[in-house]
Amino acid sequence: MPTQQLRGVFTPVVTPFHEDLSINLPAFVAHCKRLIADGAGIAISGTNSEACSETFEERIALVDAAIDAGIPGERVLVGTGCCAIDDAVVLTRHAIERGCAGVLVLPPFFFKNVSEDGVFAYYSELIARVNDPALRIVLYHIPAMSGVPISLSLIERLVQAFPTHIVGIKDSSGNWDNLVAMLERFPSLSIFPASELLMLRSLSLGAAGCISATNNINARAIAQAFADAADAARLQPAIAAVRSTVERFPMVAAVKHTLAQQTSDPSWRHVRPPLVPLAADASTELLQALAGIPAMEARA
Amino acid sequence: MPTQQLRGVFTPVVTPFHEDLSINLPAFVAHCKRLIADGAGIAISGTNSEACSETFEERIALVDAAIDAGIPGERVLVGTGCCAIDDAVVLTRHAIERGCAGVLVLPPFFFKNVSEDGVFAYYSELIARVNDPALRIVLYHIPAMSGVPISLSLIERLVQAFPTHIVGIKDSSGNWDNLVAMLERFPSLSIFPASELLMLRSLSLGAAGCISATNNINARAIAQAFADAADAARLQPAIAAVRSTVERFPMVAAVKHTLAQQTSDPSWRHVRPPLVPLAADASTELLQALAGIPAMEARA
Repeated sequence: MPTQQLRGVFTPVVTPFHEDLSINLPAFVAHCKRLIADGAGIAISGTNSEACSETFEERIALVDAAIDAGIPGERVLVGTGCCAIDDAVVLTRHAIERGCAGVLVLPPFFFKNVSEDGVFAYYSELIARVNDPALRIVLYHIPAMSGVPISLSLIERLVQAFPTHIVGIKDSSGNWDNLVAMLERFPSLSIFPASELLMLRSLSLGAAGCISATNNINARAIAQAFADAADAARLQPAIAAVRSTVERFPMVAAVKHTLAQQTSDPSWRHVRPPLVPLAADASTELLQALAGIPAMEARA
Repeated sequence: MPTQQLRGVFTPVVTPFHEDLSINLPAFVAHCKRLIADGAGIAISGTNSEACSETFEERIALVDAAIDAGIPGERVLVGTGCCAIDDAVVLTRHAIERGCAGVLVLPPFFFKNVSEDGVFAYYSELIARVNDPALRIVLYHIPAMSGVPISLSLIERLVQAFPTHIVGIKDSSGNWDNLVAMLERFPSLSIFPASELLMLRSLSLGAAGCISATNNINARAIAQAFADAADAARLQPAIAAVRSTVERFPMVAAVKHTLAQQTSDPSWRHVRPPLVPLAADASTELLQALAGIPAMEARA
């Protein structure tokens, strides 16, 4: 049985926008470099990156900016799932060409109540069209957003059909039983929960790390906890306090608001519609709650 | 109070694919011409067109093909909603440049549980960026697919803010009470249910027509029923029989399978993943049921 090909703490990097909502590439690159320095990998074009609110050209430009700035490809995952297969093909090929470690692929998310055969056909067609032995796919299970679950039986079929290409799963269901079922059934896949708390709880069961939004503001502690069990025990309470605080607010806006404070760059607050920035009272509440957590004071 | 700017029976045209799933533009143009000859307008890049499974360039090419073939722009709506605003801007400007009657705009459909403020901001930003007095938007309410409803209060806000740009609503909820509420509250908007049966039932309440998938296979009767109340009474039973038969199957696959028979072109059966073609037993059942409806025999 092959061993897990991808391991680590990956950050679905949020995307900085100027006032006019265009992308601030230098701020993006600086953020990626900080995360790498803190010990985390990056996942470009994830849900928390607002990737679906970005054009095709913008998504390509973000990957190029990170790689051109010297971020090592083996620390980079790229979200390449699109409703149209040929869009996903182009983004995936580009990520491979730029030496990225893998691609995180949403199922097509417009049509709902589609059959498992249909989703299987989507991934099959993508793999056939990319047609590259270097293709390494992390399946992206995020039913609350995509509306299209990646079931255990679908994973089974895909792994059997494409054993060299299906290397992992991001489980953003937040469902512990589902995570455990994935870990038990697919021990050779790299399985990433979307929360560092679920990661810490499932490392002994074989979790490969996490791909968590809160890494954007707390990467050092989370990466340390992943790397060392003794550190994990020591850091767990503060990590949990940060996560549970941020989770009380809309995730992307809350992470960006915190980053605006950490970097002293208020433009981090900008989000693209349909997301909206945190309201003033929520902003105050969030920052006050985080300031009460010792580890976060040290971080800022 | 301004009167309804758009009226008629519009067909969300299904898209013909070759065996390799590339678009068959000549077959598409021929289908559009038949529909126009049958008295229906066309809506390019709707849900039933599998627009979200098509690339940006393909969506542009479909509009160009129809207009270049002489389909009058005033009979054409174009679906231009995308998760990324700038994508929607480019598709919308193109539709306006090509003289299309209006654009049918989905809300951004990846993020769920977004605020009404966020969806309002999306449409506001789109309108500001398109920045063209000729912009005429039909809001697209299809919560079962988009996961993001267009609420009555959102419509109210948009109409007040952009009275010259918001000209209609497509209501694909299938919910009679919602349709009636829209008709009562927004009499100057062109309100299109997604079913010809709901259209026939709501014409006296002010419905502007319909944008219905089954127009693809039954346009002549539906357009006739819309145009003439006496014809409507006569044609209603057969129209209802066709609709209720097709609705027993996955809509796009069933419509395409029927078209394959009507045009003697089996390639109409192709759909893009995540949709799948009708299974053999369902195909047989569908065509047998339709053959039993007198109007459909005459049509084929």
